[in-house]
Amino acid sequence: MDLGALSGIVGTEHVLTGDAARASELDWRERYAGKALAVVRPGCTEEVARVVRWCADRGIGIVPQGGNTGLCGGATPDMSGTQLILSLQRLDRIRAIDTDNDTLVAEAGCVLQAIQEAARNADRLFPLSLAAEGSCTIGGNLATNAGGTQVLRYGNARELVLGLEAVTASGEIMHGLKGLRKDNTGYDLRNLLIGSEGTLGVITAATLKLYPQPAAQRTTLLALQSIEDAVTVLAAARKGFGAALTGFELIAGSCLHGVVRCYPQQRIPFDGASAAMPWFALLELSDSESAGHAQERFETVLGALMASGHIADAAIAETVAQSRALWHLRESIPLSEKAFGKSVKHDISLPVSAIARFVKETNALLQQSFPGVEHVVFGHLGDGNLHYNVAAGTGRTEAELLAQQDRIFAIVLDSVARFDGSISAEHGIGQLKRGLLPRYKDPVAMALMRDIKRALDPLGIMNPGKLL
Amino acid sequence: MDLGALSGIVGTEHVLTGDAARASELDWRERYAGKALAVVRPGCTEEVARVVRWCADRGIGIVPQGGNTGLCGGATPDMSGTQLILSLQRLDRIRAIDTDNDTLVAEAGCVLQAIQEAARNADRLFPLSLAAEGSCTIGGNLATNAGGTQVLRYGNARELVLGLEAVTASGEIMHGLKGLRKDNTGYDLRNLLIGSEGTLGVITAATLKLYPQPAAQRTTLLALQSIEDAVTVLAAARKGFGAALTGFELIAGSCLHGVVRCYPQQRIPFDGASAAMPWFALLELSDSESAGHAQERFETVLGALMASGHIADAAIAETVAQSRALWHLRESIPLSEKAFGKSVKHDISLPVSAIARFVKETNALLQQSFPGVEHVVFGHLGDGNLHYNVAAGTGRTEAELLAQQDRIFAIVLDSVARFDGSISAEHGIGQLKRGLLPRYKDPVAMALMRDIKRALDPLGIMNPGKLL
Repeated sequence: MDLGALSGIVGTEHVLTGDAARASELDWRERYAGKALAVVRPGCTEEVARVVRWCADRGIGIVPQGGNTGLCGGATPDMSGTQLILSLQRLDRIRAIDTDNDTLVAEAGCVLQAIQEAARNADRLFPLSLAAEGSCTIGGNLATNAGGTQVLRYGNARELVLGLEAVTASGEIMHGLKGLRKDNTGYDLRNLLIGSEGTLGVITAATLKLYPQPAAQRTTLLALQSIEDAVTVLAAARKGFGAALTGFELIAGSCLHGVVRCYPQQRIPFDGASAAMPWFALLELSDSESAGHAQERFETVLGALMASGHIADAAIAETVAQSRALWHLRESIPLSEKAFGKSVKHDISLPVSAIARFVKETNALLQQSFPGVEHVVFGHLGDGNLHYNVAAGTGRTEAELLAQQDRIFAIVLDSVARFDGSISAEHGIGQLKRGLLPRYKDPVAMALMRDIKRALDPLGIMNPGKLL
Repeated sequence: MDLGALSGIVGTEHVLTGDAARASELDWRERYAGKALAVVRPGCTEEVARVVRWCADRGIGIVPQGGNTGLCGGATPDMSGTQLILSLQRLDRIRAIDTDNDTLVAEAGCVLQAIQEAARNADRLFPLSLAAEGSCTIGGNLATNAGGTQVLRYGNARELVLGLEAVTASGEIMHGLKGLRKDNTGYDLRNLLIGSEGTLGVITAATLKLYPQPAAQRTTLLALQSIEDAVTVLAAARKGFGAALTGFELIAGSCLHGVVRCYPQQRIPFDGASAAMPWFALLELSDSESAGHAQERFETVLGALMASGHIADAAIAETVAQSRALWHLRESIPLSEKAFGKSVKHDISLPVSAIARFVKETNALLQQSFPGVEHVVFGHLGDGNLHYNVAAGTGRTEAELLAQQDRIFAIVLDSVARFDGSISAEHGIGQLKRGLLPRYKDPVAMALMRDIKRALDPLGIMNPGKLL
């Protein structure tokens, strides 16, 4: 294949092959490897459109890629060497900030953290926040409808977008960057593209919502006797704090103990019976008023829940450093999981009202089939999103556990289906769950999705082999 | 056409023709009249699917209809007598309320007010609120992505939906009522159907988000010297009140004076210079804490804005009755417009930062072409949504004004386009703006919309002649 025409579009130095392409052919966790025809790095939207037209003319598959931090292999090409990786990383300008309209226009390749900082410099908040924020790009965040820790208050990535600019599968530019909070002029193409994992078109820029910076934040770690108590506390916190409740993370006691086993410099801020509680919740309040007011609200709402016995104990961060230490405990869980050995992981969601029963029943089913496995459960309770992971525990090796991965998937995901949950809460489908999707998704919805794919990408060149 | 098979599906008494069909063939404002083959009233989702299949087999156009309160003729058939009105009004059950998950499942024919009341009875808030709430149905609210007075805090109708059940154009049932806050398993069919005005399928039920009831509300009417001051006050209120700011309505002084001219029992709560201010804003605070706290916040935030001169005067409602009276002033504007005579109306949106310049420039352009016309401007400033209406004023009769409607449309909507606004903020397209849409919508977006329409409704039977 003569790639000269691509060099003519983006410049020779931005068409990478061989060793120069290697880093883009492998995902960051090194779970998915592919072989690309080339990595092409356009520098502006018009160049993206010309590259897509070049591919469309030749029937060449396009794999859009941002920060390459996805968890489901959605940005990795297949092994054929015939697909083009379209890197958006050079589209990294923040085109505009409008503080009166509370909007920011960012190109797809902007790193999430750079957007957060630009908002902060304008005395505003861009609330999307997740572990990879230092390297993931907003284009990838939107293509996968990223979640994270602030969804309870501000919604998923899609809720933070007012407008999109995108290149269609035929290489045309859709101009839709209007910063409007109401616009009822036809089908919601914005939300159709968001979460479509690059299979319908390429997002090149987005108009994002900004929020006021909170005046003060308070954080507490709560020790709880049961998930039922956690659900009760969540409901009371939603009522008592209103929209100021910005975080509610559920953590199994075993997860916290795993963190301090793995990282002895960290500590659980409880002793005795409180430290031995089966569940914990990390609660964050973002107050629009003052630190004093946040403290007063904490005392009123949490005090009532302690008096009624729904909270067993509470460790309230008194300083910013203490608050960071509590969040650090939570954020250390994924890395500390190695304390349990490799595990079979599930990113699932459920109605909040079903979570307690789901955990009980699914734990029991797993113990029946695999006695002694360890349940590593944590997640965003306010969103019904659990990271429900299964470690070897006692009675088997890590390798023996991983050999049973498909059976464990079936037990957990069938249970998710019985409770009307979702097999992918925030990570997406990509390559990882593409085979599982038809088993768990409504067949009529699957058929509509295939109809839309055929209509908007009749050549099937947009991220082939992903999602559908 | 033999309608016997339809009677077999829904029962003879639910297939209406002739006089019995008349009320459904005319919209409530009597602006749009059509002639239907019949009005069919299925009693459950399965019956809806069977009726759609009957129509698909015969290529008969289907006009879904809820409360028939739309403003753009979206629920009125054409005059051919060949289209079927599919009334969803018998699907009026609230199927479930889950207070732990903060969700409510309602069928399409539920009247909005009935859903608000069901939520209130469960000590929850369903925040969608608009003038027609006593007769509009949730199916129509979602098909048109309704707006209303609480969008600033809770978003448009689409933001209040977690799941949908719908019947496709081929008469299949899509089961998607999961009550999940995170679900990344493919294309966002929910948002594609919401706002599609019945042209892609029929929404039969929805899982809706519930919120905590606020503990207290405070309302104030602010007298303002300029729209620029209104924008400054809005930004400060967003920062100072956070998400507790639930309403911010901009009202031109002439609108308020029109209300009291039309309804002398109402009064403007200002005297002298304050009453003569050119602009007013109705601000509502919904506090999760207490009436005392709401009062204290009002004094702090509004006090600072009065000290800086951005607020000329403020009338704070001291009782629920006074608060209702302030809202009543705002809600009386549309009906009181007759004080100015019939007007040429526009439901538009703009970036908040552009509203002051838009109003100034567009007023001036209109005065150039139509000296002496009266500008009747009010709307949801927090959402950038203006109801920008033009009345005859001095120098022409009402009939002479209306004869110039197309020229006025062109002046106002071309101005909207220059400021990157939208020609339909919350009312939709329907029949009214179908002809205008291609002039103002991005051509690539129009082409994508047509591709989606062809893919999901290849026979073109879903609400023909609307939107596209």
